[in-house]
This record gives sequence, C-alpha cells and structure tokens, in this order.
Amino acid sequence: MNLQKQAIPDHPIHKMLANRWSPYAFAERAVSDNDLRSLFEAARWAASSYNEQPWRYILATRANPVEFDRLLSCLVEGNQAWARTSPVLALGCTSSRFALNKKLNAAASHDLGLASANLTLEATVRGLVLHQMIGIVPDRARELYRIPDDVLPLTALAIGYAADPDALPEKYRERDLAPRRRKVLAEFVFGGEWELASSLVE
Amino acid sequence: MNLQKQAIPDHPIHKMLANRWSPYAFAERAVSDNDLRSLFEAARWAASSYNEQPWRYILATRANPVEFDRLLSCLVEGNQAWARTSPVLALGCTSSRFALNKKLNAAASHDLGLASANLTLEATVRGLVLHQMIGIVPDRARELYRIPDDVLPLTALAIGYAADPDALPEKYRERDLAPRRRKVLAEFVFGGEWELASSLVE
Repeated sequence: MNLQKQAIPDHPIHKMLANRWSPYAFAERAVSDNDLRSLFEAARWAASSYNEQPWRYILATRANPVEFDRLLSCLVEGNQAWARTSPVLALGCTSSRFALNKKLNAAASHDLGLASANLTLEATVRGLVLHQMIGIVPDRARELYRIPDDVLPLTALAIGYAADPDALPEKYRERDLAPRRRKVLAEFVFGGEWELASSLVE
Repeated sequence: MNLQKQAIPDHPIHKMLANRWSPYAFAERAVSDNDLRSLFEAARWAASSYNEQPWRYILATRANPVEFDRLLSCLVEGNQAWARTSPVLALGCTSSRFALNKKLNAAASHDLGLASANLTLEATVRGLVLHQMIGIVPDRARELYRIPDDVLPLTALAIGYAADPDALPEKYRERDLAPRRRKVLAEFVFGGEWELASSLVE
C-alpha cells in the first residue's frame, strides 16, 4: 500500500495543493531526468524580491552514489536515517545579498521558500513526493561544496515516489500514518488587530 | 486588454506555475469571500518545519476602506502608489520562535514563503493575480497592529484581477509590459561543487 495522505480542507483548494504531503517512506524507483528538470524549471519561475532569484540548489541522485552520500552527509543524523532511501536529494541555499549592490536581501529565505514550493507542486503534479528538512549541518555543506559566505545553506529536499510505510522504523511509520493536522484559519488570518480573527474566517 | 504574461519555460511545467505573474495593474473588481477563504486555506496546508505553521496574515479589503487604508499605510510609498488600486491587501508575518520551547525557528521566513506560494497558486487557479512586496514598514505594522516582538512582519500581498496596464503611470506600465526574465537552470542547479552546473541541466 502506498499512502496518499489527503488534506481535509475546510474550504475548496486545488487538488495539487491538497495532495501534497511529506512522507518518510520512499520507493526505490528513480526519478527521470525529464521530471527533475521540470521540477527545477518550476522553481525557476517563482516570484522574488526585485527578481533577484536568490535560490540555489545542489543536486545529487543515487545514480552517482559518491555524490549522493556526500550530500546525505550534510543532513543531521535523524534525517539521514530515512532520507538515505530517497532516490534524489537536493540542498536548498539562498544568496543573502543582492548581486547588484551587495545589500542584505531580507527576502532571501522567504524567496527560497517560494521557489521550493513551486518545485514541490510540480512534483505533486507528476506523482512524486517531496520531504523538506531544515535539519542540515550548514557548516559541513559550506566546507564540502565551498559555498560562499554570503550564501545560506538552509534546507534539504528528498524527492521520489511514496512507498509502503510498513518498512520504516516505528517512529517514522507512525508519522507517515498519522492524520495531517493544521491550525484553523481563524488562528492565522487576522483583521484589524493582532490575533483578532478576520471577519472572513470567523 | 488584460495582460496574461506567460512564462516561456525551457522544460514543461504545470500551467498554473507558468501563468503566475505579479502585475502592477489591478481591476476594480472585488474578490469574493469564498475565493479569499480558499486562498488562505491553500496557505494553511503548506509544509513547515516541525509543522509549526509560523505564518500569520493580516487581511484588509476595500469593502472596509478604513482598514484598507490602515494596511496600505504599512507599505513603502512606492508600493502604495500602485497597490492602492488592488481590492485586497494582506500583510505576511512569521513567528520567529517555536511556540513550544521559544527556540529560534530558522525556517520562519522560508515557511512563510511556502505558505504564500500555495496561496498564490490557488489565486492563479481562480483567475486572480497576486503581487508580493518586501517593501513594507515593519515598525509601522508592529505599532498599528500590536504585533508581538517575536513575530516578523515581512511581506505584503496585493490580490485581485489583472487590468489593462495602460492606466498605470509609465514606470509601472513598462514593468507590466516587459517580458519575464529568469536565470537559466545551469545558473542555480549545481552538482558536486558550488557554481558547477549539475549534469542534469548542462
């Protein structure tokens, strides 16, 4: 059984958004080069502050085990435990200064998020799953890949096909089988004053 | 003529992602409450580090001109000039510490980006357009809405329907009519070493 965890939205949303979830169990099946190119192409067309496009990705697939293990070693151990079974890993980095004038870009991390969300949704459309992690070792990534000081290694992305969670260690299996939970809209859509629910979502 | 600026992707991507763009010209037409609820519902189901869901939005529509002007006043003047014609404004904020243990959340801004990207794509599906801005006056927003110290007001979002850019001041009209430009994949998808294009995108 391959899980397909659906959101249960209170208001209708596109199925691409409802179907997206972050599994721990990945199938062995490789991701095609064409699919991967389309994922990064989707990231490419994200919006960004001053069109700076601060996002950078370092990519490794299991077709090259040496490079895959190198990238895997930039994850914290808890994430290595399950992410090693995904066929594709990427490191999400963002350039913290504008190329033009070297001023700090306050949107750098935010805009990496915009790009990675696009990438994730293109993956969902293609029947792929994606699990992002903040649990990386930035200094190790800096050293291994000679990442410049003004670039922040921030996330890792495991990309592949969902698999039966039965093969997972218990801790992760439980997470894959748990229902998806979210705050209700009134907890994060405010009007007029902080923490006052907007009349739209009361 | 209402513009529909398409991306011209080098690799196929979902039309929702290719159709998204950030206009300066907005039509007077209001956005329905149902559409707005679905936009924030889409944000709700984004991924986040430890499922913290750090995003918060303050929402104002032109149906309430006092609240609309209040939120508009949190934008820098250059953005007020065009964003005042949009029917809906929102302020994008993110909680910089985990609710559970008050530790800093390194993914706070990134995860606001994930949520706002979902919101943007749901808008695109519904024929709406959305223009995000980093150009806000955070201290003014803090004061007006009594935003707590551990929350960062980061972005503003103008939401509505695209309009004929001919009515815009020249500076913005030119931007709306300019083709969409992006780095090529080889400039941001690396393999093995920093700034070495991945073999996938060579």
